[in-house]
Amino acid sequence: MAIKSPEKPAAATSSYKVIGTRPVRPDGADKVTGRAVYGADIRLPNMLRGRVLRSPYAHANIKRIDTSKAAALPGVKAVVTGADWPGISNKIEDLGEDTVNLGDLAKNLLAVGKVLYKGHAVAAVAALDDATAQKALGLIEVEYEQLPVVLDVRESMKPGAPLLDDKRFTDSLGTKSSEPSNVARHIRFELGDVAKGFAQADVTLEHEYRTTMVHQGYIEPHNATALWGSDDNLTVWCSTQGAFAVRDNLVELLKHPTGKIKVVPLEIGGGFGGKLGVYLEPVAALLSKKSGRPVQLFMSRTEVFEASGPAPGTSISIKIGATKDGRITAAQADLAYEDGAYPGAGAGAGCMCMLAPYDIPNILLDGRDTVVNKPKTAAYRAPSAPQAAFAAESLLDELAEKLGMDPLELRLKNASHEGTRQVNGQTFRRIGYIETLEAAKASAHFASPLGQPAPGKKRGRGVASGFWFNGGFKSSAYAQVNADGSVSLVEGSVDIGGTRASIGMQLAETLGIPFDKVKPTVADTDSVGYNAMTGGSRTTFASGWAAYEVGMDIRRQLVERAAEFMERAADDLEYVDGEVRSKTGDSKMTFAELAAKVNGRGAPVVGRAAVSPMGAGPAFATHIVDVEVDPETGKVDVLRYTAVQDVGTAIHPSYVEGQIQGGAAQGIGWALNEEYFYDDKGVLRNSSFLDYRMPTTLDLPLIDAVLVEVPNPGHPYGVRGVGEVPLVPPMAAVSNALHQALGVRVRELPMSPRRLLEETGVIGK
Amino acid sequence: MAIKSPEKPAAATSSYKVIGTRPVRPDGADKVTGRAVYGADIRLPNMLRGRVLRSPYAHANIKRIDTSKAAALPGVKAVVTGADWPGISNKIEDLGEDTVNLGDLAKNLLAVGKVLYKGHAVAAVAALDDATAQKALGLIEVEYEQLPVVLDVRESMKPGAPLLDDKRFTDSLGTKSSEPSNVARHIRFELGDVAKGFAQADVTLEHEYRTTMVHQGYIEPHNATALWGSDDNLTVWCSTQGAFAVRDNLVELLKHPTGKIKVVPLEIGGGFGGKLGVYLEPVAALLSKKSGRPVQLFMSRTEVFEASGPAPGTSISIKIGATKDGRITAAQADLAYEDGAYPGAGAGAGCMCMLAPYDIPNILLDGRDTVVNKPKTAAYRAPSAPQAAFAAESLLDELAEKLGMDPLELRLKNASHEGTRQVNGQTFRRIGYIETLEAAKASAHFASPLGQPAPGKKRGRGVASGFWFNGGFKSSAYAQVNADGSVSLVEGSVDIGGTRASIGMQLAETLGIPFDKVKPTVADTDSVGYNAMTGGSRTTFASGWAAYEVGMDIRRQLVERAAEFMERAADDLEYVDGEVRSKTGDSKMTFAELAAKVNGRGAPVVGRAAVSPMGAGPAFATHIVDVEVDPETGKVDVLRYTAVQDVGTAIHPSYVEGQIQGGAAQGIGWALNEEYFYDDKGVLRNSSFLDYRMPTTLDLPLIDAVLVEVPNPGHPYGVRGVGEVPLVPPMAAVSNALHQALGVRVRELPMSPRRLLEETGVIGK
Repeated sequence: MAIKSPEKPAAATSSYKVIGTRPVRPDGADKVTGRAVYGADIRLPNMLRGRVLRSPYAHANIKRIDTSKAAALPGVKAVVTGADWPGISNKIEDLGEDTVNLGDLAKNLLAVGKVLYKGHAVAAVAALDDATAQKALGLIEVEYEQLPVVLDVRESMKPGAPLLDDKRFTDSLGTKSSEPSNVARHIRFELGDVAKGFAQADVTLEHEYRTTMVHQGYIEPHNATALWGSDDNLTVWCSTQGAFAVRDNLVELLKHPTGKIKVVPLEIGGGFGGKLGVYLEPVAALLSKKSGRPVQLFMSRTEVFEASGPAPGTSISIKIGATKDGRITAAQADLAYEDGAYPGAGAGAGCMCMLAPYDIPNILLDGRDTVVNKPKTAAYRAPSAPQAAFAAESLLDELAEKLGMDPLELRLKNASHEGTRQVNGQTFRRIGYIETLEAAKASAHFASPLGQPAPGKKRGRGVASGFWFNGGFKSSAYAQVNADGSVSLVEGSVDIGGTRASIGMQLAETLGIPFDKVKPTVADTDSVGYNAMTGGSRTTFASGWAAYEVGMDIRRQLVERAAEFMERAADDLEYVDGEVRSKTGDSKMTFAELAAKVNGRGAPVVGRAAVSPMGAGPAFATHIVDVEVDPETGKVDVLRYTAVQDVGTAIHPSYVEGQIQGGAAQGIGWALNEEYFYDDKGVLRNSSFLDYRMPTTLDLPLIDAVLVEVPNPGHPYGVRGVGEVPLVPPMAAVSNALHQALGVRVRELPMSPRRLLEETGVIGK
Repeated sequence: MAIKSPEKPAAATSSYKVIGTRPVRPDGADKVTGRAVYGADIRLPNMLRGRVLRSPYAHANIKRIDTSKAAALPGVKAVVTGADWPGISNKIEDLGEDTVNLGDLAKNLLAVGKVLYKGHAVAAVAALDDATAQKALGLIEVEYEQLPVVLDVRESMKPGAPLLDDKRFTDSLGTKSSEPSNVARHIRFELGDVAKGFAQADVTLEHEYRTTMVHQGYIEPHNATALWGSDDNLTVWCSTQGAFAVRDNLVELLKHPTGKIKVVPLEIGGGFGGKLGVYLEPVAALLSKKSGRPVQLFMSRTEVFEASGPAPGTSISIKIGATKDGRITAAQADLAYEDGAYPGAGAGAGCMCMLAPYDIPNILLDGRDTVVNKPKTAAYRAPSAPQAAFAAESLLDELAEKLGMDPLELRLKNASHEGTRQVNGQTFRRIGYIETLEAAKASAHFASPLGQPAPGKKRGRGVASGFWFNGGFKSSAYAQVNADGSVSLVEGSVDIGGTRASIGMQLAETLGIPFDKVKPTVADTDSVGYNAMTGGSRTTFASGWAAYEVGMDIRRQLVERAAEFMERAADDLEYVDGEVRSKTGDSKMTFAELAAKVNGRGAPVVGRAAVSPMGAGPAFATHIVDVEVDPETGKVDVLRYTAVQDVGTAIHPSYVEGQIQGGAAQGIGWALNEEYFYDDKGVLRNSSFLDYRMPTTLDLPLIDAVLVEVPNPGHPYGVRGVGEVPLVPPMAAVSNALHQALGVRVRELPMSPRRLLEETGVIGK
């Protein structure tokens, strides 16, 4: 299906004028000419440069910190440690479960009492220049008492494992454990009766699948610039997926009122979930408060790897039973996620997504979140779902093989549909999973033979599917009608993947005007209503909905004003296709005419909206991949990749394709090469882009994105989120392809050359 | 009455909780700590520094401009001249009346064909640094053909006077003159029958009064930074009284669509009307377009004096007739304003304000605007009214003297009141002129004896009144409710005199919350609805009204949301005093509770408003001044000054007092020292603050502001504009005081030592 022409709307049957077209993005020129302003571009008068001192140990008690020599160094204007958190004690014995929510958040940014991973922030300085700041770090005396480390999710759950926090008790199905544990949480989802289900099965398969931590690999490191004014108004500039979320975090961590904090989101060089949380912002604020001057902090690439939030590593055991004809009767799984130093989202979303594509009557899922001596994990595109899908979709492939069924047919036979009950008890509205399977079957890729491998090499094809909920949450927007018929749109969603366009196009569609008449601005937290983060595949859905409501607010006002201009009753008029028309058809005014007129006489017209929509439509994807493997070296070439996805209505098809291609590319990296490689002391040994191997353009084929459009009935324009589910199927798809090529099942990521050679017995484990 | 305590509301009878208090201004800390960002503080990557080449002659044809050597200088990135205006020919023969509106505007910023005053911009360059830009100016070859100059308003009207534009014909009462003329416009206002009125008079007086150009004297020179992006999106940062007005001007001058222009108003170091227009902004935009880089321009103080917009000089003849008992029966006047190089506002407002304080049955006013070889004039606080009031209020003093009446009694006897018809045919609604006269009579100042002068010196007391319409015009605003019960207010009015507070306080009052819960932001033109300029004494009135409407929009939404939370019908609830209450009184939710709740569940709450209110309430003022003169040196000391003004409702009394004190101070300067001093070649000889003598704190007493509060029935909170009328009475008040001290009538400004010594015969004229 490849790239559609810009002129042609995505859905041939669509009556949309703007939606489905592919206009140039409003921020395009600024970004390609280098004029877009990113966080590290900010320069303020008298700005100080900050640096963070980080722990050399993966697990240690902090016996003593002496910052006096650093503070006395000429040019140093402020030094902060965990003792500077307002309301959080730095005495280790006071750190109990009472402070856990706020405490974990704070302690991860500036350690209090203990360090829990190599790279854990211990102190920070602000100085006149970077060299002085670096020198000051060296003058901070920290006395550590080293402790044994635990680095693996399964090890962390064993009795006698080193405890990260002896005040941490497992919350197991709502009951606290009597003994402290590294297991933060144990949750369960149950549907039907698995014992009965497995009894009905003709075939049962069970395996364990493992993944390691991986990083989102955004290009732009974290940064933050803070200015704490003498009137206690705090302004923070940063690279974030959600300025309001940063504000909320600052409110909590600094115990400072919302009304006194402004967060200015700058352009963002990638996030993928990793920039939902805060790392440097509160520290920069503390340094600014202490120094009375603006302070800028940013991370090196190594700091990003060691101390931001990768995706959790996992150990997932899954068992599936099916009848001979391919009907799945039961599924049961244990999902263990290593959340890193502090509990994170972890297993919950993994449980809920793992089997969502399938209408299985009996399911039992147990999820566990554990803490280990690694950085606290964060969201990464469809967080927790890819690891779970790797397990489930690999095992389904084994099941298909065992049943002698085509893997797509097996999925079709069990596919979720409108009315299918999910493990959380909800049922699906109209979804498009079956349509993605059918489109995959109908694709040119599926119809093409695999072709002959190069001499000595082997080829295989794999398929896998994936699911992501997609989010709703709060969005707000304003818009004003300009005299020239243009509309200025004020939105609060940081634009990562083209949302200035995808939101603005929905406003243009609503008003019936060309998209180039809409000028979007991403505002700071003082200048627009609350907007949840750009994440959860919610932005085009919810902020687009806000844009739609802003448009409707403007339409209502224009009808009233037109009534005045046209000397008609407002009830006799209607807004259609960018015009206010009399219902009798004898009179009309275009949007451009009205725009000129309302800016001439009387009040101008401005619109507002705030929404928190339910009805986010879930996303399903099915991917097909062809690989060629060199059995001698273990090198894998991805020959062809097709990603089919139900995208609801594709507002801007190019960006939808981009999201799909980007997600698939990251999935290929996760499948084949990416991993957090720790030594036994808990030191990350590959904390650079040189050693952390992400795919480059040379490693990837053109990824063919097939857009299946099953409009979401819960959105005025049928929007479903599209940005996350593309990362869910690739690992299993690649693994299934490798199985076809090599005849071995690789159940641990990454499927790197070394691991492949081990699995095929070329080298020893 | 002096300064009121911050705790006490201005009006003792007021039920307001926020209005009438004196909170600290939101921008106060930033401004006193040097953190507020002004135009010249802007630094952009790769920014060029621009310079403007200005005419050394007051009147000349431009025969040739050769910019090639300047353009070839290494480091010079762009050179522009009038030839770069899109759509305006630079051929002198093409400049006819067809292009007059846009043409005048453009030609004043970059001359086309002719230069009309010393300092007139001829070309501009942008270079890597200022030294290169300066050097480049010297390389621009301009061949001038000098022409005779005309510098005085009366000279400019004489037959045979040098013509500034031989295509300019007088528009006299709607008819074009047959011969070209320097008189751009002749207007007339007529009420009753002056011949009949003068026939009823027992006493008739007539005199001519003259004033010279004066400058507003704002501290911050003009500046502009422009970035014309490769996508043709133009961003301009500048110091202006109206970002939207700048945008409108850029649209016209650059023939560029509104939707492609963003104007960012920065903090402003004074304007007083002089920063309503554009000078550098379009030139910076042209330079940026040509160079492809951001360009910053700013004026030196000399450039500000020579080439921005001072207030017009005037020659005004006025005749008044009255009965013996002091009833004014008729008034007639000829008002000639020198508008400078191009026609400006000129005589119109002067005619309309001159006699507005008085209920005179028969009036005939002829106003003329003339062009002279001086900079194009601009607004300066109550533009055109102070010159006219100088004439009228001086002559009234002479009339009072002749009739043997107290000057305040004469004014009281003839004072305008509700129902008085004005020369423009409108009648006053509720006004407070009589109240200002009565407050002046009742003031401690008026009751105090003048006191004994120092040996050899003389004392006098003078009074005078003044009028200004006050403006309405468009304002828009947004606001969002934050979870902590604070409200972020987005407004588009540049804050010159404390309008963040005076607008924000009206929102706080409407919502029934403390002012410190409101955080105002002044937004750029992309981020808020249209807002007319901060000027015309409209901002607290109209933008305050927008804030009120935003508050009402939020109140309506909060009532609906409260209905949901309280499980009541919305109709059973009302918003009172910052709470939503059930009308039965059994249930309520405070604003803070609602703010937390709407930010928790469902959509957040945001408000919007756009207004263009009629009903601006006119302002009246009566000033009393005591002076002491040294007859030997002509030095005048202002001993005591009381300014009484009907301020409607004083939203923030300290800022109202500040406006009054500032206006009176400027009036004292205009009265005693300030003048544009030209030599006979049209060269301004005092173009620095050293030679252009403005009053300093050492020259002024504490000016006592007496706030008379007659609420404006045309505004939800009774607001009248307050910023302009304080400049109207001072010149006549000082002149009247000097007459009492010295026994001479000084009918020309400034009443400098030299002029006083001439008038008293100490030195010859």
